Amino acid sequence: MIEDRVLEALLKPKAVAVIGAAREPWKVGHIILRNIVEGGFPGRVYPVNPRAEKILELKCYPTILDVPETPDIAVIAVPAKIVPQVVEQCGQKGVPLIVIISAGFRETGPEGAKLEREVVEIARRYGSRIIGPNCLGIMNLDVKLNATFASNAPPPGPISFISQSGAVITAVIDLARMYGVGFNKIFSLGNKADIDETDLLHVLARDPTTSMVLMYIESIDRGQEFIKTAREIIKDKLVVAIKAGVTERGARAVSSHTGSLAGSARVYEVAFQQSGIVQVRSLRELLSFIRLAGRYSRPSELDKPRLVIVTNAGGPGIVATDACEKAGIELASIGPDLIERLRQVLPPAAALHNPIDVLGDADPDRYCKVLDIVLKYPEINSVLVIATPQATTRPSELADKLVNIVNRFGKKIVLVAFLGGESFEEATRKLVINKVPVYSNIEDAVDSLSVLDRWFKLRAKVLEYISEKITLIEIDVKAIREIIERAKSDGRRVLTLDEALELASRIGIDVPPGGLARTEDEAVHIAEKVGYPVVLRIVSPDILHKSDIGCVKLNINSPEEVRAAFRDIMEKVRIFAPHARIVGVHVSKMIKGRYEAIIGFTRDPQFGPVIMFGMGGIYVELFRDVSMRIAPFTRLEALDMIYETKIGKIMMGYRGSRPVNIDMIVNTILKVMSLAVCIEDIVEMDINPLLVTDNAVFAIDVKVVVR
Amino acid sequence: MIEDRVLEALLKPKAVAVIGAAREPWKVGHIILRNIVEGGFPGRVYPVNPRAEKILELKCYPTILDVPETPDIAVIAVPAKIVPQVVEQCGQKGVPLIVIISAGFRETGPEGAKLEREVVEIARRYGSRIIGPNCLGIMNLDVKLNATFASNAPPPGPISFISQSGAVITAVIDLARMYGVGFNKIFSLGNKADIDETDLLHVLARDPTTSMVLMYIESIDRGQEFIKTAREIIKDKLVVAIKAGVTERGARAVSSHTGSLAGSARVYEVAFQQSGIVQVRSLRELLSFIRLAGRYSRPSELDKPRLVIVTNAGGPGIVATDACEKAGIELASIGPDLIERLRQVLPPAAALHNPIDVLGDADPDRYCKVLDIVLKYPEINSVLVIATPQATTRPSELADKLVNIVNRFGKKIVLVAFLGGESFEEATRKLVINKVPVYSNIEDAVDSLSVLDRWFKLRAKVLEYISEKITLIEIDVKAIREIIERAKSDGRRVLTLDEALELASRIGIDVPPGGLARTEDEAVHIAEKVGYPVVLRIVSPDILHKSDIGCVKLNINSPEEVRAAFRDIMEKVRIFAPHARIVGVHVSKMIKGRYEAIIGFTRDPQFGPVIMFGMGGIYVELFRDVSMRIAPFTRLEALDMIYETKIGKIMMGYRGSRPVNIDMIVNTILKVMSLAVCIEDIVEMDINPLLVTDNAVFAIDVKVVVR
Repeated sequence: MIEDRVLEALLKPKAVAVIGAAREPWKVGHIILRNIVEGGFPGRVYPVNPRAEKILELKCYPTILDVPETPDIAVIAVPAKIVPQVVEQCGQKGVPLIVIISAGFRETGPEGAKLEREVVEIARRYGSRIIGPNCLGIMNLDVKLNATFASNAPPPGPISFISQSGAVITAVIDLARMYGVGFNKIFSLGNKADIDETDLLHVLARDPTTSMVLMYIESIDRGQEFIKTAREIIKDKLVVAIKAGVTERGARAVSSHTGSLAGSARVYEVAFQQSGIVQVRSLRELLSFIRLAGRYSRPSELDKPRLVIVTNAGGPGIVATDACEKAGIELASIGPDLIERLRQVLPPAAALHNPIDVLGDADPDRYCKVLDIVLKYPEINSVLVIATPQATTRPSELADKLVNIVNRFGKKIVLVAFLGGESFEEATRKLVINKVPVYSNIEDAVDSLSVLDRWFKLRAKVLEYISEKITLIEIDVKAIREIIERAKSDGRRVLTLDEALELASRIGIDVPPGGLARTEDEAVHIAEKVGYPVVLRIVSPDILHKSDIGCVKLNINSPEEVRAAFRDIMEKVRIFAPHARIVGVHVSKMIKGRYEAIIGFTRDPQFGPVIMFGMGGIYVELFRDVSMRIAPFTRLEALDMIYETKIGKIMMGYRGSRPVNIDMIVNTILKVMSLAVCIEDIVEMDINPLLVTDNAVFAIDVKVVVR
Repeated sequence: MIEDRVLEALLKPKAVAVIGAAREPWKVGHIILRNIVEGGFPGRVYPVNPRAEKILELKCYPTILDVPETPDIAVIAVPAKIVPQVVEQCGQKGVPLIVIISAGFRETGPEGAKLEREVVEIARRYGSRIIGPNCLGIMNLDVKLNATFASNAPPPGPISFISQSGAVITAVIDLARMYGVGFNKIFSLGNKADIDETDLLHVLARDPTTSMVLMYIESIDRGQEFIKTAREIIKDKLVVAIKAGVTERGARAVSSHTGSLAGSARVYEVAFQQSGIVQVRSLRELLSFIRLAGRYSRPSELDKPRLVIVTNAGGPGIVATDACEKAGIELASIGPDLIERLRQVLPPAAALHNPIDVLGDADPDRYCKVLDIVLKYPEINSVLVIATPQATTRPSELADKLVNIVNRFGKKIVLVAFLGGESFEEATRKLVINKVPVYSNIEDAVDSLSVLDRWFKLRAKVLEYISEKITLIEIDVKAIREIIERAKSDGRRVLTLDEALELASRIGIDVPPGGLARTEDEAVHIAEKVGYPVVLRIVSPDILHKSDIGCVKLNINSPEEVRAAFRDIMEKVRIFAPHARIVGVHVSKMIKGRYEAIIGFTRDPQFGPVIMFGMGGIYVELFRDVSMRIAPFTRLEALDMIYETKIGKIMMGYRGSRPVNIDMIVNTILKVMSLAVCIEDIVEMDINPLLVTDNAVFAIDVKVVVR
């Protein structure tokens, strides 16, 4: 939660103090003050420095307590050791927002971490909030405030940026200055001792001047709140995130670098998807997108791309088509009337379909005639212009004319790919100056557009999800707690087979009829009761891989076979697991299903319960035909989980296969989800296989790990 | 086959004629002549133009027949209609190589195609070879020959380029000029009426001045020869190719554009892999690689990359690590002695592992001290330098110092990623001028290195393949032909089940014991002979999906059940396929296997027989767990086919599963391959499922389509 006064400080600050403001121009405390002054912040600015009278023409104050008003923001750039004392004073003064630039905290080791906790506790006592420490600072260009020690600021505009890396901010600023991309608010998160990405997303959701949000993320701390907040902001703002540290090695680099724990890459992917946030696949994609965002920064004015490619060469047209197809971008179809109009301005050899090939001898005029026709067409809302250097291309003139066209069709997206080097240097510069997104290859242009495209698709899906209510399925909590307590009091973290099967049936998932037999006679009795064929399995807290040591007997068809199987299991135990505690042998009816699925959950330290559905069996890890969702979620999301897997598609009736009752699978997923949400004591659960027949499911084997 | 005199003309031309040389500076025939003259070609140049005395100070000849010697190359730039006559004269003159620039052939439709065939026939009569028509021309910068109508030429160097798109050549030249990337030979393929990519690859294999080859390919015409030729050249030259038209839509664009038929994307992938050619995933990757190739163009002087990342910011270091991990590039480990040496030049807070974080306050000197230490280390052969714009970065000075370092460590690869925009403009220019590969994002740099990395890995594999002999397995050709003839004489293209099973057994693949029954009695007789349980299946040339209409009966356990099943099948036929011709009912022993595989082949129009292995069953297309190879291939390649699939990994003993006899699977693949190679009449075959037990395989269902 961000309090109103902190929100006010972040959105509309009127007075800022710089604690540790320095006279020496190379010192961070000086650079920040200078950035604020030179940035043209119209509010009051108070340098705090006990050993200076004036810095940059501004009167200095010995402490924040001496400042004649309570500033909205105090920026702290003093040595780490003094920070607690300074924060204490900020608290006393009632400063709502403290931005701690100083390094020397958690990132340096245990002692720094202790100092950091201390600082947060002090601030909390006074109700002050902290950004940082160990950060670059914040910018609010909407009010011309640059409270960072970055060398430069980008031009103002509607894009905001939340970043866990200060260096990525300076790189983006540098790029933004070159391409004239306007930014609104820039937040450097630093060590995230207090305010984190979720808080700032919450702030930006309430910021009418921000229409797009970029995020550089190494870790998300409060996963559930993050998703909730994101689902709110993406309704009318486009949010793009890069998650760094996605690979195993990368993840190690995160933890050694910022001390923050990275969740697994897959869970982050799922989280972004559920959030409606577009996850870019590389920093390159983010940087490419920024060029597009520079001009087309108000997503509410745009629509899902329906693209036309206009090229002066066939080969690059094919390459662009390939790239669009891979990215899933819709290529607009060119209707007969449009073809007719194009024919009038193009030579007979030109290709009039999409891609439109204006031919190698096209001059700037021919390009523009085509663009003018195409962009007037209501069904087409974006164009990728590709030029290769030919004798008649005249890049510089082409650039001038493109600028004109792009300005005329303000709300239609025009991207330019100049394929070459030398010939396009001047032309590229012209487009850059005029904020026309220009690229030196086709794929960067397509990637940029793809970010927008993915947002439209993802947003539509998430809006559908949000419109539905989450209903947890009622489960027998009392009985389940009893099963768990029994295991715990026994000193066990893993339930035995009979306990786990009982648990499954308590959440309403059928298990094959059967029971626990302690003797041969009991085994035969159960078999006769449930009917042949039956399955016999050892039940022991000490035997995890039952079938590996021959303690699972399938397809048992008579009392004699039951007895033989029982004896053989016991013999195997004597040989392979002589010290195992034996609860008995589980006897159950052998059921034939059409499919083997897996449904289970685990708990992610950042995001909470993650539910999985997919193809079951012993090779789950090999085929990885699984989908995941962070709980809780709706029926519709459960249905999508099924559809996202191959086995799910088959169950739904792939290529004429008879569909199973999908509602039943959805319900089973929701039952497992409800268990995960309601019983915190279970840390992991797998139902594998979950046998699926046309109209029923059976939990055949269940693994449950408790806390 | 390229004749010696054509090879000589391509590698060491001494005299060139330009037929259609024009006085008007804007005409293609003038531009080509001017390019040859201005390019400084030291040989003789003969303009041919019946209506001119002199062009560009050179004496003109009315026809090629009037030229005082036989030129090695005649470049033709006359209207399409006159081309046959001109080619006739070239033939009479004995010109070995004719480069036809003129358009108006196959690309314009059937009449142009006819004209093209005519031209090729004329040339063939005289033993002349043709490049083009409809092409940009050729360059041989080794002898300073620029016989193209491109506006510019790149500097000379060891890289050659074969391209099916003239525009991509002009774009690459433009880029090469900017980055100072040296090229050797550039061939524009045009319509490939005669000489194709395989011929030119063959030429470049014999060209001592070429050490790297780039290819832009839309289609490959002679797949088998291409692979053979590639396997020769990649021994000591790096070959990189982009295949345009990889997606369905893209492929359509190919065929509408150049009239050439594109093979399926997957087959091309397989072909490149078998060839040892690195297939780039985008034009961007090719253009990125060209910058690296500009400096590190002699792969024989390099080794598989073992990379160190040096960065002034943690975030980008993580991003780079992610990118390397995804690309499979080996990050060098930093040993204790190296760490010790780094410690001496870096502040305590610096990260000394890979990535090495020199910290945000690093100046150019600190960067260079670290690079100097790292590059002296024999275990490290490549470095990615990342810089973000910080107060002390001083990009321009950093660039100067980097140039110095890069020059000093000539054979170690140094790539630079400048993350930003404005701040790095001058520094980037400095690196570009000095041919240091510089990128504006991390991923382009990593992609470039990845091309090299993939080549080293691929080459090693292909060299292993080449070292082994291909041995076809003997199959009973006579018996197989008889089966096929029987079907053909019957007017059938698809073999019936009993024929197909017989065929499988004729190539040495076991089928379950059984036979064809025409009556209930015969069925019972067969069942009794082979033993229960048995399977009954209808045999009819008119029933393709047997099980869909209930004409497959599994798990039949007694004579009574056999009779009932037989009658039921016949009843189902009466209901669902009343007009089907019935051969009988196939009765066979029901066998239980551990796995269901698929082995089959198809014929690709470009590459010939493509053999497939993978997970069988009814969802082959959904799971796509299959690998492919173009036949013929070696045992080792068959083994790799198995290993490339998940089901194959399982069969080999994934995670402690009991391995099956893999030799047996390899042999089965080789048997199918031998069939594909020896019996051209079979166009398609599927064994699915191929039942796999520990020590045997059985073809359960077989589909064979004949020509």
